[in-house]
Amino acid sequence: MPDVISQIQADDRRFELPDGAGTDAVHSDPQYGYAVTQLVTADRKHSGTGISYTLGGGTNLVRTAIELLAEPLAGQEIEELMADFGTVHRAMAEHHQIRWLGPHKGVIHLALASITNACFDLWAKSRGVPLWKLLLDLSPEALTRLIDFSYLDEVLTADDALSILKGKWSTRSEREHILKEGYPGYDTSVGWFAYSDERIMENARRALDLGFTAMKLKVGSPQPERDVRRVQKVREAVGDGVRIMVDANQAWSLPKALDVCRQLASMQPYWVEEPTQPDDILAHQAIARAISPVPVAVGEAVSNRVMWKNFLQAGAVGIVQADCTRLAGISEYLAVSLLATKYPVKVIPHVGDMGQMHHHLVFFNHIALGHEKLFLEYIPHLRKHFMFPANVQNGAYQLPQEPGCSTDLLPRVDR
Amino acid sequence: MPDVISQIQADDRRFELPDGAGTDAVHSDPQYGYAVTQLVTADRKHSGTGISYTLGGGTNLVRTAIELLAEPLAGQEIEELMADFGTVHRAMAEHHQIRWLGPHKGVIHLALASITNACFDLWAKSRGVPLWKLLLDLSPEALTRLIDFSYLDEVLTADDALSILKGKWSTRSEREHILKEGYPGYDTSVGWFAYSDERIMENARRALDLGFTAMKLKVGSPQPERDVRRVQKVREAVGDGVRIMVDANQAWSLPKALDVCRQLASMQPYWVEEPTQPDDILAHQAIARAISPVPVAVGEAVSNRVMWKNFLQAGAVGIVQADCTRLAGISEYLAVSLLATKYPVKVIPHVGDMGQMHHHLVFFNHIALGHEKLFLEYIPHLRKHFMFPANVQNGAYQLPQEPGCSTDLLPRVDR
Repeated sequence: MPDVISQIQADDRRFELPDGAGTDAVHSDPQYGYAVTQLVTADRKHSGTGISYTLGGGTNLVRTAIELLAEPLAGQEIEELMADFGTVHRAMAEHHQIRWLGPHKGVIHLALASITNACFDLWAKSRGVPLWKLLLDLSPEALTRLIDFSYLDEVLTADDALSILKGKWSTRSEREHILKEGYPGYDTSVGWFAYSDERIMENARRALDLGFTAMKLKVGSPQPERDVRRVQKVREAVGDGVRIMVDANQAWSLPKALDVCRQLASMQPYWVEEPTQPDDILAHQAIARAISPVPVAVGEAVSNRVMWKNFLQAGAVGIVQADCTRLAGISEYLAVSLLATKYPVKVIPHVGDMGQMHHHLVFFNHIALGHEKLFLEYIPHLRKHFMFPANVQNGAYQLPQEPGCSTDLLPRVDR
Repeated sequence: MPDVISQIQADDRRFELPDGAGTDAVHSDPQYGYAVTQLVTADRKHSGTGISYTLGGGTNLVRTAIELLAEPLAGQEIEELMADFGTVHRAMAEHHQIRWLGPHKGVIHLALASITNACFDLWAKSRGVPLWKLLLDLSPEALTRLIDFSYLDEVLTADDALSILKGKWSTRSEREHILKEGYPGYDTSVGWFAYSDERIMENARRALDLGFTAMKLKVGSPQPERDVRRVQKVREAVGDGVRIMVDANQAWSLPKALDVCRQLASMQPYWVEEPTQPDDILAHQAIARAISPVPVAVGEAVSNRVMWKNFLQAGAVGIVQADCTRLAGISEYLAVSLLATKYPVKVIPHVGDMGQMHHHLVFFNHIALGHEKLFLEYIPHLRKHFMFPANVQNGAYQLPQEPGCSTDLLPRVDR
């Protein structure tokens, strides 16, 4: 029976975090927030859940934007919709009036993210398969039709994407063993900015015990000595075999970034994340050159595929932290994943969704696009709010089995 | 008596346009919209009006964002507020949760634009002077304190800005004659995309009769021959002495832009505006190189001072169309105006405000910053909605005399 979207709901969900969790150099008192899209079928058999990620305040703006942008989906049959979703996606992004609030950025783009992700979730549920399997089972042609390639022409056309997908097709079986093995995670909750030195050392040791071999520390202190000292403390706690990443969350100006990054680079972090303002492509380029071979990581605030194209062309990024809850959903995430295959970079998503969609996507990216198997960010703070929280065993995400994108949230708890 | 902000109101105003007006290659059925901030003093003697510019749809999102962001202004005395407005501005832009909806772009940045402009309007009214006089009478130190220079350090610090302002101080009198002469305008309403060939020729001749010596034509047609033909038609209508600008409103991919721009460049337009997606700094750089010496113009969709810094550093722009209703208000407009003095570019604002604030600002920029005297965009369609519509005589904006920023709107007309 065809699954027709008959009801579109938008919601503003915000979640309190445990004391000190989620803090960084710029965000002192975060909540985690989701702008949620719910697409319900006429027979109420399926409900697609899409989320985009905020830090709490203003999520209501995204909720209202969802209501504005999702209107054309009412009455659409999900298979028909997804058969040429790239065109649908583009039409929503290019709404002739609303695009002036971007284009392709900020509140309206986050709304498009949530809507897009709800479409993918409904589609996968309608077919009764998890997202990773849905995507792996699509023909290269069908996959390419999910994506809006506009403004990427000189680097990536739909035909290029098709060639990339076809080129990797015959060797897929060599990579499918990860479906059994799981996909390694790295632990971000080790080193929130507000945590004491003692606490980050304790957390680091616990992460090691849980099987993680990579972990992240928030830096960007007004006193660079604090940053340096804390990297040393974590290194002491876990030894040389563990990868340590540092994340400044946009705290520095370029001159300051160059100064502190050079100090940090001498301690061989696996990457330096968000050293400065995320629109500043040329500043990132300068930092990347200064601290090479330590790579610069960015993504959670890179607005769209056009900005990504510029970052990649400029050699301003080494670790592509594309996030389908910050870009315009899975569709634009796939565009960036394809784009990245043309450059000497690693793709390691930022997980606004706490890894729920992204653990599907990294399995897909490795098998279908040949992306290097690395590790996916892991943040545990919202586990209790998801219906199917990601299953992480011995530091590795296990293959999800439930149909859809694993983004269904448990209902609000009345207090 | 001190002027204390006691009431903050936000509004969503949308204006119908005459048939075909405002149309371009991408926006087929525009309204003009303003997200309005109103700051009313405790004694109700003054009300500061701030606007940011949209194309209608979604203006309600900006209205709600104004309500969120403007909260800290309640109870503030206007002189105290403006004495260190750069710090206030930064605090609003860096709201630790809401900045995640940008940062510095989209709906929340447009809200900050409206709020900022309302602060300047209230300040000028409180002092009983027009904006241009308010700004010209400030010391370089006081002017510099209006601006958030963060993330500009390697190109422009507050100290650099001070030097620029002081350096131009002694020669101001050589430029003050424009206060009497007025500031030339150029006519954008000649060549909207939906107008017929006959109509644009007629409009062009009428613009010439009204004293305009420069005018704009919308291009970006799926058939480049239409674009080329229409430039020829306008040229025929007005002769060789008139400057013709062409504006594609982001219609082209880079390969298409290179192709069509080369054809158009041979017809010596005074600039080519918005050839492609406005985040695509490297594409603009490529186009600028390809069509030099014809300059590339961008601005109405360049989000913030950091993007401007990149455009300037990359040589990706020749005509800086910064707009204080699209950037975060007059404060960030001044930052970009200062930044631009360091590069071989011309500053010719896009006028989301129909020139109301910008005709104050171009007088200031010429006298205080030494910006070349050129011409300011003129669009007549909203004249009847402003309390003090700009006075344009013989193709030139006359110096406004009313206190404030000339942004007060007439009340809604009930139908």
